[in-house]
Amino acid sequence: MGGFDTIDWRNGKVVMLDQRRLPVAETYMECESVAEVADAIRTMVIRGAPAIGCAAALGVALAAHGARAAGRDAVRRAAVDAARELAETRPTAVNLFWALERMKTALESAAPQTAAADLAARLLEEALRIRDEDIAANRRMGQLGAGLLPATCAVLTHCNAGALATGGYGTALGVIRAAVEQGKTVTVFADETRPLLQGARLTAWELGRDGIDVTVIPDGAAATLMRQGRIDLAVVGADRIARNGDVANKIGTYSVAVLCASHGLPFYVAAPTSTLDLAAASGEQIPIEERGRDEVTTVGGALLVPPEARVLNPAFDVTPARLVTAIITERGVARPPYGESLAALCRNVP
Amino acid sequence: MGGFDTIDWRNGKVVMLDQRRLPVAETYMECESVAEVADAIRTMVIRGAPAIGCAAALGVALAAHGARAAGRDAVRRAAVDAARELAETRPTAVNLFWALERMKTALESAAPQTAAADLAARLLEEALRIRDEDIAANRRMGQLGAGLLPATCAVLTHCNAGALATGGYGTALGVIRAAVEQGKTVTVFADETRPLLQGARLTAWELGRDGIDVTVIPDGAAATLMRQGRIDLAVVGADRIARNGDVANKIGTYSVAVLCASHGLPFYVAAPTSTLDLAAASGEQIPIEERGRDEVTTVGGALLVPPEARVLNPAFDVTPARLVTAIITERGVARPPYGESLAALCRNVP
Repeated sequence: MGGFDTIDWRNGKVVMLDQRRLPVAETYMECESVAEVADAIRTMVIRGAPAIGCAAALGVALAAHGARAAGRDAVRRAAVDAARELAETRPTAVNLFWALERMKTALESAAPQTAAADLAARLLEEALRIRDEDIAANRRMGQLGAGLLPATCAVLTHCNAGALATGGYGTALGVIRAAVEQGKTVTVFADETRPLLQGARLTAWELGRDGIDVTVIPDGAAATLMRQGRIDLAVVGADRIARNGDVANKIGTYSVAVLCASHGLPFYVAAPTSTLDLAAASGEQIPIEERGRDEVTTVGGALLVPPEARVLNPAFDVTPARLVTAIITERGVARPPYGESLAALCRNVP
Repeated sequence: MGGFDTIDWRNGKVVMLDQRRLPVAETYMECESVAEVADAIRTMVIRGAPAIGCAAALGVALAAHGARAAGRDAVRRAAVDAARELAETRPTAVNLFWALERMKTALESAAPQTAAADLAARLLEEALRIRDEDIAANRRMGQLGAGLLPATCAVLTHCNAGALATGGYGTALGVIRAAVEQGKTVTVFADETRPLLQGARLTAWELGRDGIDVTVIPDGAAATLMRQGRIDLAVVGADRIARNGDVANKIGTYSVAVLCASHGLPFYVAAPTSTLDLAAASGEQIPIEERGRDEVTTVGGALLVPPEARVLNPAFDVTPARLVTAIITERGVARPPYGESLAALCRNVP
């Protein structure tokens, strides 16, 4: 898909496509330390819940790799410290914590006498497995989700839940890709998604590279397109899904869900089961990151808001389960009531 | 209010605050020809339905003023030609056509033998009267609308329906100003209003100058603030209101109206009766301007959308009357059914 790698391991470094520079430039950032990986997550060089999970896992592997020469205890210590540091980067996407847990389990499950180099190799293997499993999950999700799309349809999506937001292929955009691969005629409307414009910059870029028809719209234009009958359904990703089916996702998602309900349109969420947080009873337990005012006040060096004005910049919102038509995961499509259907999917581990 | 003039006549020129440069710089553009006034309207040096009406009227007066020395027939011809040119600038705001009609009536009602200079003076007088009546209408609207606001409330507004969008004082922001003047505690959430960010740039600027508490939010954040109970009502302006109460206003307004309905919040429209288009039976008869892709793809020189991606940029949307709690005009507050209440207001001419 598209011929780019969102995140990879090359020559002992974690390499990420620098998403801040898209669509103007396709450049790769090489991280040589955990601090650089943490900073890349924090500053959104890489973003999207599953991609953040992959980056965090590779960050732990990078720390272990760097401590190889210092012996097995140093490797263990470096991995544990890295996980602690990476857990502090962003609070909302649960995939980050899920991936760090997997890395810790891999570390703990290694025999005590495992050599330093073997331990580091094992952690790297686990991190790359997390990424590759994510890609496979997205392809499976795509297959399952594509069945929900009519043979010809116009799909609204918000933010970027594509190859750039994941190990590859994408969640919401994976559903669209799979539908197109199945021969369906899909046109996509991409909310530009202020403040960071992931729809305009990233979704339009990656769908364009795959030759999928995409039209960028200001976030405020989605409602009138729905009223005009020009949108058939919406599909978005998720940063964390609570046990009851409440969905945290990029700010503006809840608005899309309300608009879908009020126009009688399906609102689908596509996310791997690593996005489920069964410890959260509802969306109220999901921490919502507030980001800085500069993301709203400044674009390309232009000052858009008077310096003395206050600004609110919540990075995510919560869509209540009652507005979600279905949740598409790699293990199946969950329908309301989600308390039961999501729990069933989680029991159904392959 | 604020100490600036949105539009004025000085030394034989039409002077406008250049709104494209706010909030960074407060500069005034002097128009010496109708072509310059038309261009200023088209490029949104001045915008907002009532302000566009004032600008068009002064544009006609400017043309007449420039033809004074060439005799009364030349003045008449210049005024008629100017009206034709100005009518082509922007299609949606009906105040433009309303103001041009008033100027034509003033021209036609002048005695045939009126001297050229007197005719030009009369047109200038009429244009300034249109502006001053607009300010007075806004103050009256403010009084009437302020009564609808609770003693302490948080108000969402979209785009800029303030002093900058009118002769002065504002429609939606006039209601807020009047409530504050009456001692009410009003906090304002301003949708930044993509693509041209009139909320972030203009509403925050003019409310800030009046010391009114304002917080800028991305358009996609309004829904979650409503869900959190942090917004009590919305008040917006209008570019054209059909006979049945359908309201054309800045893109994204319809989205706000749907969100208000779904959260049980009042959605108010404040507009002078010059915004009513009784010839339009419903919103379907209102022409919606489509503007260029550059407004969406570029901010401050930064390219935000891949060049090959398609972009839709409708400048306005239509909110159906059923979502409008009340329409606040200078002649009274209209309630549903609007077919009757708006017609009654129009019969009730002072």
